[in-house]
Amino acid sequence: MVQYREPALDTAFSALSDPIRRGVLEQLGRADASITYLAEKFRMTLTGMKKHVGVLEQAGLVSTEKIGRVRTCRLGLRGLEKEAEWIEGYRKLWAERFDDLDKIVEELNQKEKTHGQKKR
Amino acid sequence: MVQYREPALDTAFSALSDPIRRGVLEQLGRADASITYLAEKFRMTLTGMKKHVGVLEQAGLVSTEKIGRVRTCRLGLRGLEKEAEWIEGYRKLWAERFDDLDKIVEELNQKEKTHGQKKR
Repeated sequence: MVQYREPALDTAFSALSDPIRRGVLEQLGRADASITYLAEKFRMTLTGMKKHVGVLEQAGLVSTEKIGRVRTCRLGLRGLEKEAEWIEGYRKLWAERFDDLDKIVEELNQKEKTHGQKKR
Repeated sequence: MVQYREPALDTAFSALSDPIRRGVLEQLGRADASITYLAEKFRMTLTGMKKHVGVLEQAGLVSTEKIGRVRTCRLGLRGLEKEAEWIEGYRKLWAERFDDLDKIVEELNQKEKTHGQKKR
């Protein structure tokens, strides 16, 4: 499991906590786009979109390049591998934990049954 | 791919953006624990830990129960399935995008080669 103290996870999960930013990542997964295009697509002001792109850029999820007057955005080099690993590790722990609880409930039910039979 | 506008993703990713909260989830994946125990384990004040647990509880990742004076925390019913799905969907887009770029670079290299050969 990826160590929970990994600082890169902080910025990535924080960047992913906003629906517009997740939408931008999906959009850039299909094609590179200018900030103006993204702002129009998500019905936002240019300033608002610049802020979102800035957060994604700081997290390494997006890279931008200014050519003339246009700033083009594309996916960054970070492919959320560590984030996927952490979540998978957690999902295993979670599933085991609930399996354990299932077993305890089953044991209790079994005891209840035996107890009931003895009573009769 | 899970729709990026899914509000549950906002609260979950936001909850996961803090190392202490990820640590608490890992800890509770091993055994239930009181808030006091968690505060000591992560060297925090009781108030600080209560806040973190509150965020996790609101995201459905932890549930708590007060018995007498002790509030016990355990993993919540949400197993980060949607979050794992969204990240997996994104990782696929990301990998395809970089494959496309690789192809373009290869094509350019190929053209460069042919061009070079013609020049000679």
